[in-house]
Amino acid sequence: MRDKLSIVKIGGNVIEDEKALDRFLTAFSQVKGLKILVHGGGKLATQLATKLGIESKLIEGRRITDTDTVDIITMVYGGLANKKIVAQLQAKNINAIGLSGADGNSIQAHKRPVKEIDYGFVGDIDGVDSELLTSLLTIDLTPVFCAISHDGNGQLLNTNADTIASEIAIALASVFETTLYYCFEKKGVLMDIADDNSVVKHINTSKYNELLSEDIIADGMIPKLHNCFHALKNDVEKVCLGDVSMLDRNTELFTTLTL
Amino acid sequence: MRDKLSIVKIGGNVIEDEKALDRFLTAFSQVKGLKILVHGGGKLATQLATKLGIESKLIEGRRITDTDTVDIITMVYGGLANKKIVAQLQAKNINAIGLSGADGNSIQAHKRPVKEIDYGFVGDIDGVDSELLTSLLTIDLTPVFCAISHDGNGQLLNTNADTIASEIAIALASVFETTLYYCFEKKGVLMDIADDNSVVKHINTSKYNELLSEDIIADGMIPKLHNCFHALKNDVEKVCLGDVSMLDRNTELFTTLTL
Repeated sequence: MRDKLSIVKIGGNVIEDEKALDRFLTAFSQVKGLKILVHGGGKLATQLATKLGIESKLIEGRRITDTDTVDIITMVYGGLANKKIVAQLQAKNINAIGLSGADGNSIQAHKRPVKEIDYGFVGDIDGVDSELLTSLLTIDLTPVFCAISHDGNGQLLNTNADTIASEIAIALASVFETTLYYCFEKKGVLMDIADDNSVVKHINTSKYNELLSEDIIADGMIPKLHNCFHALKNDVEKVCLGDVSMLDRNTELFTTLTL
Repeated sequence: MRDKLSIVKIGGNVIEDEKALDRFLTAFSQVKGLKILVHGGGKLATQLATKLGIESKLIEGRRITDTDTVDIITMVYGGLANKKIVAQLQAKNINAIGLSGADGNSIQAHKRPVKEIDYGFVGDIDGVDSELLTSLLTIDLTPVFCAISHDGNGQLLNTNADTIASEIAIALASVFETTLYYCFEKKGVLMDIADDNSVVKHINTSKYNELLSEDIIADGMIPKLHNCFHALKNDVEKVCLGDVSMLDRNTELFTTLTL
């Protein structure tokens, strides 16, 4: 039987709020079995950019990453957010190790080609080193990834944290029985966006297509759910979407996705 | 026979200068056998602090680290400098992995007690996890340490990079045949501070005491040399002091210290 592995992604909102982060990290520390954390950085980068007088440009929620911005992201995601999370997990007896995709060459990527939009130093992932991650997990380390990859030629690349989480899950699905958790501000996929408790508890492929055609999955949820089903189609066992109480096991109210 | 391990510390001056950094990293990538890099961050932190309107306070070259300053150090040392070095080493085919002392609980420390001076969030090292570092080296990773440790209770601590290098060397001296290299702007210990080429090529304990009593070792060199002999007394094979050409092997002009 394969070991169980949980890959948990948290959004920027949680990181910005000290109390929410502590609650999340406590919940994460209690997740049984092997685990990996993936975090964004979100508004912290915008805040630092503003203080430094550097304009933040976002198109459809995606950051345009020029040279100054990639430095800011490296400082905020790779430095401040990542090391604080690692230190706080250590205090909760989790032997965390912070990583960008450059560390151990764990996530190889290439700069996104310029089409209609030039996203700048944004990475599209080519591969995840599952052997390295397996080695780290085997010596009881808990990898904590920030949303940065690299191109192998010395350039760091801003990379979507949802995608990093799903690509890591896919890369490790042949080694471990892998569950992917997307932890965000909502309780899951909602039937009615105005009703926080209208969670769709289970979504399989046919339900997914139904919700898509009915426009219940819309806006930012479209790429999120696309990522989820991409992971499931590539041997990830299960994907769960919900807020921190999904990890706490204090609620049954979250969305589970299977093929 | 034990494997050879080189621990190389570079100062902040090298990191600030893109060309000097590239030359250093090329030289480091060509060092044979197992290796570990330790870097400071120096003026980069002061520069960011100035841009953010945070005053940098230094007493005898040591930074007073308040809450804002530890965040800046975490961004600059743990984020920007560390990840850039790692990405650039990857481009030179070195499988580098960036670490603070919190990562993998590799360097445990405590906040320096307040005596005459309150240094703030500055760490004095309690221990280095030699088992973890050995495991990482065994899977062909090259650890790259920034000058940050942690207290195990979630607090990151600004920590002298020279001391981190010597404590790592000491911790690993029982496992590997360990040489410690301090790479800085001078060619070594100089007989005449005004003459860059007046390098003392070999210093043993009696020569050390002689140079100390003659005030040839003075100012900032006193704690540096103290660190070196502390390492030698604790089973580190050899300590070398010099500029980047010491690593290039383009010169015989550097200082070698033995007991």
